[in-house]
Formats: sequence, structure tokens, C-alpha cells
Amino acid sequence: MLAAIQTPAALIDEARMMQNIARMQQRMEALSVRLRPHVKTPKCIEVARRQQAAGARGITVSTLKEAEEFFAAGFDDVLYAVCIAPQKLDRVLALRRAGCALTILIDSVAAADAIVTKGRAADHVFDVMIEVDTDGHRSGVEPDDDALIEIGKVLHRGGMALKGVMTHAGSSYDCSTPEALRQIAEQERSRCVRAAERLRAARLPCPVVSVGSTPTALSALKLDGVTEVRAGVYVFFDLVMANIGVCTPDEVALSVLATVIGHQADKGWTITDAGWMAMSRDRGTATQQTDYGYGAVCGADGNLIDGLVVATANQEHGIVARRDGTVDPRLRQYFPVGTQLRILPNHACATAAQFSHYHVLGPDGAATTWSRFNGW
Amino acid sequence: MLAAIQTPAALIDEARMMQNIARMQQRMEALSVRLRPHVKTPKCIEVARRQQAAGARGITVSTLKEAEEFFAAGFDDVLYAVCIAPQKLDRVLALRRAGCALTILIDSVAAADAIVTKGRAADHVFDVMIEVDTDGHRSGVEPDDDALIEIGKVLHRGGMALKGVMTHAGSSYDCSTPEALRQIAEQERSRCVRAAERLRAARLPCPVVSVGSTPTALSALKLDGVTEVRAGVYVFFDLVMANIGVCTPDEVALSVLATVIGHQADKGWTITDAGWMAMSRDRGTATQQTDYGYGAVCGADGNLIDGLVVATANQEHGIVARRDGTVDPRLRQYFPVGTQLRILPNHACATAAQFSHYHVLGPDGAATTWSRFNGW
Repeated sequence: MLAAIQTPAALIDEARMMQNIARMQQRMEALSVRLRPHVKTPKCIEVARRQQAAGARGITVSTLKEAEEFFAAGFDDVLYAVCIAPQKLDRVLALRRAGCALTILIDSVAAADAIVTKGRAADHVFDVMIEVDTDGHRSGVEPDDDALIEIGKVLHRGGMALKGVMTHAGSSYDCSTPEALRQIAEQERSRCVRAAERLRAARLPCPVVSVGSTPTALSALKLDGVTEVRAGVYVFFDLVMANIGVCTPDEVALSVLATVIGHQADKGWTITDAGWMAMSRDRGTATQQTDYGYGAVCGADGNLIDGLVVATANQEHGIVARRDGTVDPRLRQYFPVGTQLRILPNHACATAAQFSHYHVLGPDGAATTWSRFNGW
Repeated sequence: MLAAIQTPAALIDEARMMQNIARMQQRMEALSVRLRPHVKTPKCIEVARRQQAAGARGITVSTLKEAEEFFAAGFDDVLYAVCIAPQKLDRVLALRRAGCALTILIDSVAAADAIVTKGRAADHVFDVMIEVDTDGHRSGVEPDDDALIEIGKVLHRGGMALKGVMTHAGSSYDCSTPEALRQIAEQERSRCVRAAERLRAARLPCPVVSVGSTPTALSALKLDGVTEVRAGVYVFFDLVMANIGVCTPDEVALSVLATVIGHQADKGWTITDAGWMAMSRDRGTATQQTDYGYGAVCGADGNLIDGLVVATANQEHGIVARRDGTVDPRLRQYFPVGTQLRILPNHACATAAQFSHYHVLGPDGAATTWSRFNGW
């Protein structure tokens, strides 16, 4: 079945994916919060439908293209979780007028002013959330910053709908112990709730308190005050997540099917047709406990081959070698030209984005194709 | 004009691109070799047509998808410069039977056997070249390896057309002085010619001797014995090439148009909507003389803003800051929310691949759209 697939190709192990979906959903239900999956990882309607079927409500997107594609497929409750550029408000307006409950995000008075101006000119009430910075790694206003209240007032007095606050503790990706993960999860929660409380104390509406990243969602012990959690990569998982400690490599549902095209036996290299164009240039494990190069190597059956990684990569060449640098000249015998291998990715979001579709391996062994999209 | 483009978007400065095309073509003509451009960088019919109009002959591809797309657009002289997986021979056969003069590449007796078997079964003579390893960085047989002659004999006796030898001195990317570049260019030339001479001495045909990479093509002082040069990234150039020393940043023809979406003034950060999904995860300048982070920042006019880079990136966030780490809190005044910036890429092949089309800025200021493609 795999033999008929032209390589390199993106594979989804459906059983693993369904297990990952169930695990996150059960956890969110145990913590009594709504799960709003981030679709930026798979960018695939079929995957999102399975998340919704398991109990997720609404989606999170990273681009307006995602909002447009998912709305066209029937998803009408969408949070665009990147601060909006004012030039994009026309596309937002078009989606909202077509019936999409699209919420946008800002973290500045300048952007609030732009939204109010646009909303008044178009006679439209935008749904807006304020990004809160809970770990200093990216966008957002700090919970105790005066700007938080100022932004809220500009929106509210300007007639826009202030829906709440959201944060993403991206620095959870730098953690690797359960203790550190629990700590950053609690920091994400408590600081975002603090922002919500300040808005409410200023008599501003703040119904939604949205937090999340895959590591914090899987590590939080309590989510008091939080109404929803966003997470994306958990649906596939990847080697970065395995190093962080929230999954094992054999739970990773995404892999790249590759074919052996040659060897350099004296160097212990097996060369495949899955280079960085297929794996992406993401080297997220480079600074983690286990550096997997450009990916961890499995047989065509999906089982890890211990110690074998894609050590280096060119655009269309992946150089498979032992991770410890030792030379095994027998690799040529083990993996002759034409052999198919499967490579687990460092970062599923980046690797999946190199493909236009997935080959989905069902529990019964059958393969179907699901399309995905890219772009903005 | 740029204001109407939704960001992030890939821009081509057409005047710079035409200058880059002319420079390489003139150089190849001065060295009396044919230029067979590698289309893996732009993957764009319009770009390739301009290279051919300037005097290039034939194209080099890195995937069969490129061969198929370019053949459909009228390019019928194609070298697929990655060692072939036997499973791909049916697609090669289909292209050749449709009239495409597609040459394939191998570096092992195993692959030669597979081609002979396939050719005989299909009653077809494949055009085949042998990859030569001239710098130990990837695929290929060494010029003095017995396997070189053995592969040639298997092909020739098996009735296939042995077209010649080709090499790519990818380690030229590790050079940064004119002397080192001239040395690796001469090593690439002399070792590839050596392989051709050995084949001919064994009474095997070897009409084509193909070498190339952008750095070696622009550094070779002589190309005696070489019949063609392949180069790809020169058409756009990028910051890696600037660090190597074969172009300057203001010759880079590809940039990513971004829009400012926020600031963290106390950190000296300006945040744009061009994250790593737009720039790619390529950090090729990280180990070079000047580390540009995820790209060098220009104004919307395309002029570099000295010292400003995309210091870090998330999927859809690019964090612009001073390269030297100093904090300039005035960036918020210089670049208010909504400001457009242009980012020069580390590696044009990787950045361009994140987009489905280019916005081409002509010398007259008008913008047109050229499509590109991805995948395999």
C-alpha cells in the first residue's frame, strides 16, 4: 500500500491521531474548560471535524486564509489568534457579514483605534479580544499594564464587543520537566485571569479567558477562571513535544515517507529523497535533550529504528546516519536503494506545511487522502 | 501599490532579478560553457523563460513535479539532478514518451541495474548521468572509485544512454573568501573532469560534464573540460550568498512583504506578520559572518535599514529588533502598527517555497503576479 505512494509524502497514522484527540479532549473535560483546537498545525478540514466530533467547540486560526477555508467548510466560530493588521479588516468584515463569528485580537491602543474607526465606518461591531503577555516571549500587554484597561476602554466606548483576554505561554516549549511545565501552566493561567479581573474591575466586559499551548494544556493541574484552552500540535505531536515530555515518539501521528536513493557506506550514510524541503528547515530539537537532526527514522511499519536520524539534509536529500556519530557500514545492506522509510518530524506544524495533502493510514491498513492548504 | 497586497507576500524586484540573470549568463559565456539553470529556487515558468531568453539552454530540476510542470510549459530539455528512486521510473518514462528529453541521475550499481531492467522491460533507452562526489558532502561516487566504471559499464552494456557525469560542490556554501571559493570551484571542475576522463579511457561515452553551484559558478577562473554549469539561487540571491561574498544584500531580488502588528517597546521589538511560516525555518546565516536571524529588514522601498533584523520568529510572528541586541524604544514611532516592511531572506530556495505566487515589481513600479508551485 505504501509502495504505491510517490515519495516524499506526508503520512498520518489515524489511530495515533484519534488517540491524541481523545487524550486532550478528556483532559479538558476533566478540567471543565472548552477546547478550541488550533488548526494551524494540520490545516485540514477532515482533522478538525474529528476534533469537533470528539467534543471540541470552535477553532483557532493563525491566518485569515485558515478562517476563510474553514468557514467555507462549515466552521463558523473562529478565533484569529494573531494581532490583526488594520489592512486585514476588510477580509474580516467580509467573513463576518457572510455569517462567520470571527473574533480578532489586538494588543495596542493603535490597533483598537483602527478597529473602532473601521467598525464605525462600516456600521459594524467587531468581536475583539486583547492579547495578554504572560511570559515575555512575544506579543501582548502585561496583566498589570495600564494599556490593558486603556485598550479595553477604547474598544468598549467605541462600540466594539470586548470578548475577553487570551494568552499563549510559548515559553513552555523551553521546559523539559513536569515541574517546570506545571509552573509555566499555572503562570499562564494566573496571569491571564489577573488581566480578566482587572478589566472586570474597570467595569469592562470580559466573558472569555483563553489560554493555551499543547505543553501547558497537558500540564495544568487546575484552570480556575479559564473558560477555554487552545492547543494545536497535540493532534499530531512531534519530537519537540517528546523532548518536552508531553508525549513519546511512538505517539507521533505525522511522518514523512521517504525512499532510499543511495549510500556513502564508508561514512555510514543512507541517502533518501526526503530532504529539508520535505522535513522543513525546523531544527527544534537541536537545543533539546535529544537532538534528532532533521527527524527520527522509522521503518515503513512506523516503528522507530533506535539511534537512526536524518543527520543532515539538502533540499531534496536526507542523510540518514546514526545519531551517536558512529559509522555502521551495514546500512547499505539493511536499506538498499528503493527501501521506504518513515521519518518523524521535529515540528509537525513546519513539516506538514511542506505538503498539499496527507496520506491517511487507517487502522484497517487502507490509505485515503486528505487535502490541506497553505498560504495566507 | 504595495499597500494593496495582503501580507505576508513574496516580492520579486524584477530589475534586480534581470541583472542577476545577465551577470551569470555573461560569465558562463566568457567561460565558454552552457548554462543550465536550476529551477528549484523560483519554481516559476516566467522566471525560467527570462533565463532562457538571456541565453540559458535547458533546465535542471530537483523533483519530477518540476520536470512535469516545466515540460507542460514547453521546456523539453531537463536534467533531474537528484539520484533517482527506482519507483519513480514510470513517471520518467511517461515524460520521455511524451517528448521530454529528461535525463536522470544515479550513483550506484543497484540503481543502474534497476534502470536497465526497467528500460529493457519497457523497450526504452533512458538518458542517464552518473553523480560524482567532488567534495564529500552528499551523494556521488568518487572520481577514482572503481564503482564509477562499473556503473558506466552496467548502463552502457545494458543499452542505456550514458550521457556523462555531474557534480555539485555544495561545500562551497561553507566558504567566505574569494581564495577558498576559487579553490573549491577548481576542485569541483578538476575532479569531475577526472571522472569523465576515466570513463572515456574505459571506452565509455561521456559527452556531458556538468558542474555547478552559484558560488563556484561565480568564482571559477577556468572551466576547461566542463560542458555545462548548473546554478539556481543566483537568480534571486540571498543573505547566505551575501555572506559567502558572491553578491551584496542590495542585489537580493526576493523579499517578503510584512506588516507591523504590534510592539514590545521596552524590549525594542517591532512585531510583524511575517513569521517563520513566511520566512521559512532556514537559519543559514546563523553560522556565517553576519547572522541575520530570520532575515534583514528593509523599508517598503526595498532599501536596507541598517542593523535591523528579524531576531526571532514564531509561526506567524516575526520579531524585528536590532541585530546587535541594543534596545531602540523609538521603533514604535518609526514603524507604527500597519507599517509595511520588506524582509530579505537567508535562503531564497526555502523562503520562496513558502509561497504559491510572487508579486513582481517591475521597473515602472507596476506589480504583476507570477505563480510558482511546490510539492513532488
